Order: sequence, then structure tokens, then C-alpha cells
Amino acid sequence: MEKKIEIDEKLNMMRHSLAHVLAKAIVSLYPEAKLTIGPAIEDGCYYDIDLAEPITPEKFAAIEKKMDEIIRKGEEFKREVVSKARALEMFKNNEYKKELIEELPQGEEISLYYLGDDFVDLCRGPHVESTRSLQNAAYKIHAVNGAYWRGNEKNKMLQRVYLYAFKDKKALNAYVAMLEEARKRDHNKLGRELGLFTTVDYIGQGLPILLPKGAKIIQLLQRFVEDEEAKRGWQITKTPFMAKSDLYKISGHWDHYKEGMFVLGDEKKDKEVFALRPMTCPFQYQAYLNKARSYKDLPLRYNETSTLFRNESSGEMHGLIRVRQFTISEGHLMCTPEQLESEFKNCLELAIYMLKTLGLYEDASYRFSQWDENDRAKYIGTKEQWDEAQNSMKKILDHLDIPYVVGVGEAAFYGPKLDIQIKNVFGKEDTLITIQIDQMLAPLFGMDYTDKDGSKKSPVIIHRTSIGCYERTLAYLIEKYAGAFPLWLAPEQVRVLPITDRNLEYGKSLLNELEKYGIRASLDDRNEKIGYKIREAHNEKIPYLIIVGDEEGANGTISIRGRGNENASGLKMKDFVERLLEEISTKKI
Amino acid sequence: MEKKIEIDEKLNMMRHSLAHVLAKAIVSLYPEAKLTIGPAIEDGCYYDIDLAEPITPEKFAAIEKKMDEIIRKGEEFKREVVSKARALEMFKNNEYKKELIEELPQGEEISLYYLGDDFVDLCRGPHVESTRSLQNAAYKIHAVNGAYWRGNEKNKMLQRVYLYAFKDKKALNAYVAMLEEARKRDHNKLGRELGLFTTVDYIGQGLPILLPKGAKIIQLLQRFVEDEEAKRGWQITKTPFMAKSDLYKISGHWDHYKEGMFVLGDEKKDKEVFALRPMTCPFQYQAYLNKARSYKDLPLRYNETSTLFRNESSGEMHGLIRVRQFTISEGHLMCTPEQLESEFKNCLELAIYMLKTLGLYEDASYRFSQWDENDRAKYIGTKEQWDEAQNSMKKILDHLDIPYVVGVGEAAFYGPKLDIQIKNVFGKEDTLITIQIDQMLAPLFGMDYTDKDGSKKSPVIIHRTSIGCYERTLAYLIEKYAGAFPLWLAPEQVRVLPITDRNLEYGKSLLNELEKYGIRASLDDRNEKIGYKIREAHNEKIPYLIIVGDEEGANGTISIRGRGNENASGLKMKDFVERLLEEISTKKI
Repeated sequence: MEKKIEIDEKLNMMRHSLAHVLAKAIVSLYPEAKLTIGPAIEDGCYYDIDLAEPITPEKFAAIEKKMDEIIRKGEEFKREVVSKARALEMFKNNEYKKELIEELPQGEEISLYYLGDDFVDLCRGPHVESTRSLQNAAYKIHAVNGAYWRGNEKNKMLQRVYLYAFKDKKALNAYVAMLEEARKRDHNKLGRELGLFTTVDYIGQGLPILLPKGAKIIQLLQRFVEDEEAKRGWQITKTPFMAKSDLYKISGHWDHYKEGMFVLGDEKKDKEVFALRPMTCPFQYQAYLNKARSYKDLPLRYNETSTLFRNESSGEMHGLIRVRQFTISEGHLMCTPEQLESEFKNCLELAIYMLKTLGLYEDASYRFSQWDENDRAKYIGTKEQWDEAQNSMKKILDHLDIPYVVGVGEAAFYGPKLDIQIKNVFGKEDTLITIQIDQMLAPLFGMDYTDKDGSKKSPVIIHRTSIGCYERTLAYLIEKYAGAFPLWLAPEQVRVLPITDRNLEYGKSLLNELEKYGIRASLDDRNEKIGYKIREAHNEKIPYLIIVGDEEGANGTISIRGRGNENASGLKMKDFVERLLEEISTKKI
Repeated sequence: MEKKIEIDEKLNMMRHSLAHVLAKAIVSLYPEAKLTIGPAIEDGCYYDIDLAEPITPEKFAAIEKKMDEIIRKGEEFKREVVSKARALEMFKNNEYKKELIEELPQGEEISLYYLGDDFVDLCRGPHVESTRSLQNAAYKIHAVNGAYWRGNEKNKMLQRVYLYAFKDKKALNAYVAMLEEARKRDHNKLGRELGLFTTVDYIGQGLPILLPKGAKIIQLLQRFVEDEEAKRGWQITKTPFMAKSDLYKISGHWDHYKEGMFVLGDEKKDKEVFALRPMTCPFQYQAYLNKARSYKDLPLRYNETSTLFRNESSGEMHGLIRVRQFTISEGHLMCTPEQLESEFKNCLELAIYMLKTLGLYEDASYRFSQWDENDRAKYIGTKEQWDEAQNSMKKILDHLDIPYVVGVGEAAFYGPKLDIQIKNVFGKEDTLITIQIDQMLAPLFGMDYTDKDGSKKSPVIIHRTSIGCYERTLAYLIEKYAGAFPLWLAPEQVRVLPITDRNLEYGKSLLNELEKYGIRASLDDRNEKIGYKIREAHNEKIPYLIIVGDEEGANGTISIRGRGNENASGLKMKDFVERLLEEISTKKI
């Protein structure tokens, strides 16, 4: 069932009006500044400005002061409609506005908004009536970044001035507090501090190095996913990470995805040109093609822990979320049209099971990603094929009662997708899991099956991930748990802390006991104060500490500290191990 | 302890003499044939011949007949020493021999060998006195392949005529029988037949696709290896498969290994040039470099199931053994010089444990791979550094009493190696496992540790694999077990075969029981004759079949068939499952 995205029009109007106030304040301080565009965004607004002098943080206060003045004066927003010629004349010294005006279709109304008598901007509006309506609003300039005019790196770099803007002080403070908490959880910071991953300049951006703790979590996730998939009838494959261009020419990647791919060699010079794979599909199809198939063989489900490569530009890289190489719980399922709905449902159930197990389910929402009919070059197939595939997905989603928003132009080049979206701590949304219906690629690869009546038919293909990309999943887990992972995923589950050297032997025997049960544990045998050892272990977010002193040694008991406020003494090791094993095997979150 | 490789000089002389007989026979049948070179090899000899007419298999008999004649006649080999001028005059119509003669150093003796009065060849010898000595020899032309003159593809393609040659009929027959058995086991044939892997032209050579059965075995091996490594104190990492050229310039790969690498981009045009990694070393070093290190942190052991890429030419590709992309049980260990010997020993013990567990130990031998002082461009470091590293390895190998052969020029570019060599079914040897000592790379990457006295020192690095390359290991396992893998590695461990549809329900309940214990099993519920189902399962080398008919159903028992001749009835399922679990957990071979 399609959900419309709700928009707070009033808040948006207020933010957009504040963008004009911001622009007026800047122009009054820097008369040479050229304005370009200034939209409302999800936490305020920004304005892109062409100005030689850098707007550094120490200048923010003066701009905000000027904004306050404008608002206090209660200046009015007045709309005026002008002809294209008049508009061009008015903005003759601003090549950006002129470019925008030139592009307006003949006959479209051109509206300007005055703010007071001394400031005017080209704008569709709407705006508040007067800055009196903004007197309760709370705002704050929080950043100035470089931004190319119209997002094109061939154009001039402008200064983008960002404003947080909320309806009142309370809302702004709540937002800033949320950001502060988010920053503490930011995987790109916390993940490094906890020694989960790092990056290195001479290796390159978007190529994170998973250190032992991070790599351990991914190993655990991978085994969990592969085992769960096997239980649900998926057969594992291991296919190569590169292929000759010949493969991508069949699949359509060469025509529709080449800029996103790392290409090895030059078609003009080399006999063989290879490319690193951006997707697993055409590789995994080879397992299907390895034998003649009958309807009795279907559905055939292939999973793979698959590494993919995407040639994204350096500016887009971000921690573990935007990377050039990533590993994904990939799968392709070949079935008959009759099996499609139930198999789609199975894929969705697997994805939900994964999200629930990891504790990420509540942060997820659904997007039905469709093609953009007006951007045909991005897709293979005919309008009829797209209508068929999209209708077929719509019917399934409606049957399954999935609440989704529609994303036009977000489809894969070969078919529509159900994307499971997750928001990170900063509220930024990304796709984690995807389930796609593809009725186009099978014929291109000659994939068929013999049906009951002896005729050859094309299977429908579901492309899907079950947990999505491992690096990205790790990023969400870091942020969700602020690094304090559920016990089953914690790289180090228990640390044994002897209080003095006298307790070392007993500590060692406890460590051996833990290791016997496959519990990941260590012994802090350093000659340090116990308080120091405990603080360090807490900072590392170790789930449980076993503290042993003379008393514990004499009684053969243990004292434990949990990550919360748990603090218990006189426990029997046997009982504690049992509790740990229970917590691990149930994947308690 | 160095082992000298034993050479059977007598057999070699016989084979080399037969090469002349072969050449004489060919020239007498094809007078226009130009002879080039004809050495003895490990199963006979070959002769490279320039002849326009292709020597097709139907012509082999005539050549062999002519050889028989020459041998029956008892013709004599006579040596003659001539001047360079005389030699050039004699071979004036043969540009190949002339090229060889021209290259002989001034003053070196040039020897010719006559065979009878009507055949002479440029040759160092030695030879048997007369073909009478060859009358018991058994030989057989078995192949004619194309071979470039001097192995250089810019030169003319010659015909290489291969001869099996043994001291008598019995030895030849034994060899041919061995080959026949080997061909049945050849992983490149059997692995495809059993559905373990395939290759696809439009993906490319050396890029095998592991189908579900092959991928399952690699998954099992990988988990086994990673778990065993963790038990022995190795910490897992997951590092990127590519890096900017900057990294390889530090490591020395750019200068010493570039031709073997896949490079992405062009240094003349692109801002950033990446290359796929041919080794893991400089990536894994980043985990070490992530923190300041003290002697107390050492040894630090990092393992990784690592994918590597080597840009080998298409002609060198072979099944799962010579590939362009492979996955390896990689590891790097940083230690103090004092720790080197015991850590080296630990690495060796791990490798031996792996080989024994897989049943490959008896096929292994050791090679101490050293640098080639005369080929300095291949290596980094000074003669002093190489002497030190090689002496240090020699001392360790002698202490550990490892019997090795020396391989000059087989070292890595940064240090000497102990290579564990395995012979495939055809007797061809390849490296499976390697343990290397590297005293050169740490300073290049600024890797150091603070020693007890507060001074900064470079760690010694051991590069090692524990099981080696997974694809290659799978190839050896296929050949070793002729596809009948030990139970713990079998992709499908048990198949349940109901005799009639009446037994289907009982069969299903048995399948559920097996799956409950994590045993990989299936049910053959097709409406086929039981004999047919059994034959098919035997061909697929399934370890155990459970056959259930009316009697088993009535009594609640099972009948089983093992891969050998095992055949038992009236068993209890519970006992059988116990037996399976025991066989799996002990990794019985």
C-alpha cells in the first residue's frame, strides 16, 4: 500500500523564508555576493552564494545578528510577477539567476519576492507574509561547505551556507542535542575509536581496512547469514570478481552502468578488457546455465557472500556506508511466474528476520523503486515490460500489505525494486536490503527451462539481499548500539581482570574455562590498578568483566560487571558460563 | 637439511639418445624438416621441428616404425668436435642451429653427434654408444603441440613431438596406466563432471565459477581454517582488494611486480591509479600500524581469508590451479628477532596439521626458495640483507630438521621462503603453502616497536599461508580422493532413497532427522527405479545412501550403502546418525 510522504508545508515555508533572510543578511554584509539558490531542507535551509571571501565560522555571529535585525523589523515578503525581459534586466549582473530565468519555459509566470524594499530574489515562493511570523523561529548557521553550481564539478565552486531552522528554541535545542548524541554514535568516529576499522590515505578513500574487531563481527554475521540462507534452501556459490567486457555487453552493464565500473584495460589497445563486477547477477546466472533446467528444478535459489566494486567519486565516500568495495549477502532466485509471489514473500521474510535479529527492524521503511519513463537511457526493456514487472510487484506488495513510498527513477536498470531503507543516527536514509523482480535479463543470457508441456520458457528472476551490505550493516550496528554490541556479536565477549598478581593463576583458569566453550575472552594480566583496568574495559564496551581477587580465589567464585549497571559477586563460574551461552545462542539484543 | 635432487643419468642419456633417433626418423620421412632442439624430460623426450606439414596422430605409427628400424640396425653414435666455422658451414641451411652456434662462447668446444653415417646433429651429448643399447627401451609418440622457437611468442611456431620413453615395456605400461588413472582424477575434468566448478568463455580464462557443491567445500574449509587459526592466536582482518599505486610504490610491488598486477587507470592520464592486490602484505600491515606497538604486544598474528589477483597470460591458465583470482589463507606475523624461530615453528606446525587433516601430507615436500644473486632486478634489499635473512632461515630449518631442496631464484622479492610443494596426479609440482621470512618491508612502511630499553626497532615479519590457496587445495582434494571427499567435506553427505512412493513419508522423516543434526542430506523422491537412483548417487560420490522400502518402514530401521562396498540393513537411525557425527567431528579421512 502506497504511503505518501508527509510534508510539513508550514515549516518548509518558514525555512524557505529564513533562506531569504539569510541571503539578505549576507548581501548587506557582502554587497559583492551573488545569490544563486536557497531551498528549505530537512533541518533548515541553505543558500549557495558566489563570494570570493570565505565565510569562515567567526563570521557566523555577524550574519546571524543581521538576520535578527531583519526579523525584528517585521519586514514584509511581497510577491511580484514580471516578464522574462524584465527579470533578465533586473538580474543582469547575476549570471546564475540569468541562467535560471533563461531556462524557464516560454509563458511561465516569473515571480519575484521582495523582502522589505531593498532586497529582491527570484523565487517561486510561497513565503510567510512578514518576518514577524519568524520571531519565534530558532536558527543557527552551522556550516559552510563548497558546492559546485548545479552540482556539476565543471562549474564554479560556490559557498553553501547551512542554517538549522526550527519553529522554536525548544525544537532547535532538541535537534542539536540529538545531533550531539548522534555524533557520539557516528560509526565513522566511534568505529575508529573502538578499533573496528581504519582508512589509510595511500590505500585510498572508500577502501576501509577492517581491523581484527571489525573483521570478527563481519565473520560472525557472514556465518549467521550463510547458515540461515542454507536452512531456507539457498545454495551457495563463489563466482569471480571480474569478467571480460563480453559478459557486461550481454547483461547491459556496458551500456547502462559503465561509469560506475572499474575497467581494466583499454578496448582500443587490449585484446581482452576486464571489469570488476558492480553486481553479482550475470556471474551467478552461470550456475543456472550449467545444466539444462526443467520446471521441476525450480525455484533455484543461489546465495553468495559477494564482493562488489563501484567506481564512485572520492567526494561521495563516507566511512563504511559509501565505499568503493563492499561485501554483500547477494542472491538470485530463478522461478516460474506462478512461484513468484510466494518466493518474493520468502525473501522478504528472510530480510525481516535478519533485521529483527540485529535489532534494526524498527529503523526500517520500504521504498518501491520504479523506473523513470522520462529517462529511458538508464534502462533496458520496453514500456510494456516495465509496466508488467512493476504491476506484478505492486500486486505482490499490496497482497502482502507492505506500506511503501514510491521512488521514481530508483529502479535497477533491469527492473523494479523493493528497497528496505534505514536511517542512520543523523537521519540520513540509505538502502540496506533490496528485493527486485527481473523479467528482462534471463532471455539475454539464454536462461530457460522446459515447462510441463515441453515448451521452453524464461524463468523470472528475483535479485535480493538478505542482510544487505556487511560494511553498511556494521555501520548501522555501531550507531544503533553505540559500539556496545549484543553479546553474540561482541568481538571480545568477556574480560577477566585479576585484582593483583596473586589472582593471576585463578584468572587464567577462568579464561581457559571460557575458551573451552568458545567464548571470546581475554585476561588483563597487566600490573595496573583494578580501577584503571575496569575503566579501560568499559571504554572498549566489553559486555562482561569477571573480576577476581583473593576472596573469589579462596571461595572459587567470581564477581562480574555488566555493561549496564550490573554488578554481582559470589557467582559460580558454571552458572555464569551457562548464562553467557544462553545469551549467545538466542542472539539476545 | 638440504636434500640433493637425484637424477637418473643413465635413463636421461637413453632418453636423449632416443630424441636423436626420433629426429633421424622424422628427417628420413620429411627431408624438408628443420631440426632445432630435443632434450630429455621427465617422462621421455621431445624434439622441436620446423616443418610446414602438420604431424598428425595418424602419422605417429610410421615415425615409430622408422625409429624401430634405426634401433634394430644397431647404428652407432659418434662424437666429433669441429670449429665454429665448420659447424656454421655444416648447418648453413638451418637458421635455428646457426643461431645456437653463433651464441656459443668463443673457444667453447662445439660437438656434433653422428647417428649412423647419414645423420648428424649439433649436441653436447652424452649418448649411448649404439642404438643396440636402446633395444629394450620402450617408447611411444603421444602428442605433438605447437611451441614457439625459444619459447618466445614473437618467434616462429614449431612442432614439438613428444615421446614417452622408459627403460622397458613394463615401465612404459606402468606409466601409461598411471596416466590413465590420473586422467580420471584430473580435477579439471572430474571437478566439472561432479558439478564443482565451471568456466565460461565470456567471463574469461582463469576465473573459475564455483558451483554450489564446490563453493560449499570451500566454505567448510574456510571456517575450519579460520577457527583453527583463531585457536592458535591469530586475529582476523578484512582488508581491501585494491589500493592506489602509492601503496605499491612503498612496498616495492610497483617496481618489482607490476607486470603481474591488474592496474586500473593510466598514470599519465588519471589523478588516481589503482591496482588489484597480488599479495596481502601491505594491506595487513595497516592493522599493525594502527597503534603504537611495544615489545609486549609481540608477536602479533593477523590472518585473513584473502582474495588476490594476478595478471597471468591466458596460456598459463589451468582449471583451479593456475587462475587469475584466488582466495588464500593469508597471514602476517610481526615478532622480535628472539621470537622468530619459535613462531616460524608454530606456522610450520599449523601447515602440517592442515595437510595431515586433509590427507595431503604424504604428497608434500619442502623447498627452501632463495634469491638469485645474478638477477638483482627481481629483488629489493642488499646482498647483506639477503645473506642475513637466508642464513636465519637456514638455521631454523636445520634446527627443525626439515629436509628441503634448494630453489635458487624462487624467493619472494622481499625475502626467502620455505615452500611446501605438492605434486598433482600427473606428477606436476606446485607450491601449496609458503612460510617466508621478511626483514625488509617493515622499515619501508615505518613499522616499529618500542623495545624494553625504550629504543625503536623493526619487527621481523613472517608471511605465511596455513592451508594455501583454497581453489588449488580443492583441486588437490578432488584428485586425491577422485571426488569421493571425506564425509566432513562432502557437499552432500547422505541421500535418502525411498524404493517406492509408499516409502516417501518415512524417507522424509529420516531427512528431517538428518537435517536436525546439521547433516547435509537430500531425498530422491523421483519416481525412478531404485537401481537407477543408487547408480546416480554413486556417480555423484555421495558418501552414504539410506535406502528405505516397506520392510524398513514397518520395522523403523534403515538400510545403508557406503561408497566402498559397505551394505548394511536393519540399522537404527539413531546409531547411524551418531556414527555420522563422529566421522564428521573427527574429520576422518
